Amino acid sequence: MDVNSARRFLTQHDNYTILTHINPDGDTLGCGFALCRFLRGMGKKANVVNGDVLPHRYSFLYDDYYNQEFEEKCVVAVDIADPKLMGDSLEKYQKPGVVDLCIDHHISNTGYANDMLLDSSAGAAAMIIYEVLSGMGEITSEVAACLYTGIATDTGCFKFESTDSRAHIYAAKLIETGIDFYRINRKMFEIKNKNVAAAERAIVSEMKFYLNDRVAVNVISLDTIKKYGVEPAELESIPSVPLTIEGVAVGVTVKEKADRIYKISLRTAEEFNASQICSEFGGGGHIRAAGCEIKGELDDVIEKIISKISEFM
Amino acid sequence: MDVNSARRFLTQHDNYTILTHINPDGDTLGCGFALCRFLRGMGKKANVVNGDVLPHRYSFLYDDYYNQEFEEKCVVAVDIADPKLMGDSLEKYQKPGVVDLCIDHHISNTGYANDMLLDSSAGAAAMIIYEVLSGMGEITSEVAACLYTGIATDTGCFKFESTDSRAHIYAAKLIETGIDFYRINRKMFEIKNKNVAAAERAIVSEMKFYLNDRVAVNVISLDTIKKYGVEPAELESIPSVPLTIEGVAVGVTVKEKADRIYKISLRTAEEFNASQICSEFGGGGHIRAAGCEIKGELDDVIEKIISKISEFM
Repeated sequence: MDVNSARRFLTQHDNYTILTHINPDGDTLGCGFALCRFLRGMGKKANVVNGDVLPHRYSFLYDDYYNQEFEEKCVVAVDIADPKLMGDSLEKYQKPGVVDLCIDHHISNTGYANDMLLDSSAGAAAMIIYEVLSGMGEITSEVAACLYTGIATDTGCFKFESTDSRAHIYAAKLIETGIDFYRINRKMFEIKNKNVAAAERAIVSEMKFYLNDRVAVNVISLDTIKKYGVEPAELESIPSVPLTIEGVAVGVTVKEKADRIYKISLRTAEEFNASQICSEFGGGGHIRAAGCEIKGELDDVIEKIISKISEFM
Repeated sequence: MDVNSARRFLTQHDNYTILTHINPDGDTLGCGFALCRFLRGMGKKANVVNGDVLPHRYSFLYDDYYNQEFEEKCVVAVDIADPKLMGDSLEKYQKPGVVDLCIDHHISNTGYANDMLLDSSAGAAAMIIYEVLSGMGEITSEVAACLYTGIATDTGCFKFESTDSRAHIYAAKLIETGIDFYRINRKMFEIKNKNVAAAERAIVSEMKFYLNDRVAVNVISLDTIKKYGVEPAELESIPSVPLTIEGVAVGVTVKEKADRIYKISLRTAEEFNASQICSEFGGGGHIRAAGCEIKGELDDVIEKIISKISEFM
């Protein structure tokens, strides 16, 4: 499906459920609430649905949001590469044929939806939503704040390689609606809760280096999360820490999900393909950021991933 | 002078000395080397002059640069608000009438140059240089990398309030020349030496909170600097750390200068005037960032500054 078809689709349907992915980030929530606000502005009914509790730091995206009552007639998934990412609580949407339209930028999208608007060249799914919506009517500052948040967060505030001239041009257009991008960026990239900052420091102070300091590993244990009273989602800046150290080419974050179940998140600098490495463990993602799950004792899990990385060196 | 007049000026003159300011940053160096490369590309002679040693992190801006031999006929200052900022070693350029053209974005510019192109609405001086040069010929990727660096650094990578839609539109144009903005941003905003990162963590892990967590204090001791083998200048990001903690309104950095002599640097969020607080100790600065010196035992120094801050609460 192309952008024009997506516009026609959104114009022709109503009573939307907009699905966003678990471990929600600024892009999926920015897409979801932007689309929901825009559709409601057209006089349509729409709700945003997420299988997780929404992290407080994104509350500015939905502080005036309320659920509407209606009979669901159309299901749209935004920024969801795989039905599994809807989460267990939304199992009914994971079945084949249930999602009518998926708008996404992940090259790894499984093609689960009946219709799909996929642009893997877009640094953020919010860029695709912008392209669709800007051709359908005025982008209000409320919608613009959601889309800007999606673009800024998924491009690392225009720093990542995935940033292109489109990302800047759309940001320019969105800024012109008068959004408070300074406050959005402070919230997204700077201000941290005291406990979160302390937990981060505790985790990073234990960072271990491997393979001639080319690989750095941080471990987020359930004990640490409990000790500092933080939500795992609040520690989402941890995966980007290793690559800030001069010489580190692969950053590994090992997050304890449950006893002997670890979620690995990989970030890579120029030479390595994170998605390729993670796919060896049944995971996937992007070239510079990918993830997988490995079961076992912590030390064994770390050894497995380091050993796999060394094969690519 | 307007942008068109600046274009005529640059076309009509030759044998340029391009002055940049001391404590050089990405904007002044980005402007200087962009202008120099562009003029040389026109077949003109031009050199960049700076009164300081250039920090290594900016070396990608000038790694193929060499000084040309010629008789200086025209002096252009970029991003220099005040002749004093040329530094003592360039005293001869500080005299009235010596600088032919100043291109700047500081509202505080003293008007020392014979001609001036000033746009205080520009978030970076590099935006003004872009406006001038883009109307004179092709912006090569080498020139674009310099201008992008200026815009990205002076807008805090598009985060600061001073960012506007122009900054994004120019960034989009510059990116289209094929520059490696990802590497530039990594160098400018992310990569830290392992020892510097360890020193920062050690300092911040001892951060103390006062006055209902409204004030946070970091101490940089000579012992810490020695222990981690870092230069005090490498720890310049420490003063901005306290304000990244939710709820903190005043951030205090206490840096040991010599035995019982401490340099205080204050950063404030919206409600407090850092300059006013520091002036009580004979210091000064800006509303959001100011400094002073206090002598005595560390604990007494901290007590003095906290007690003074509490008077303003």
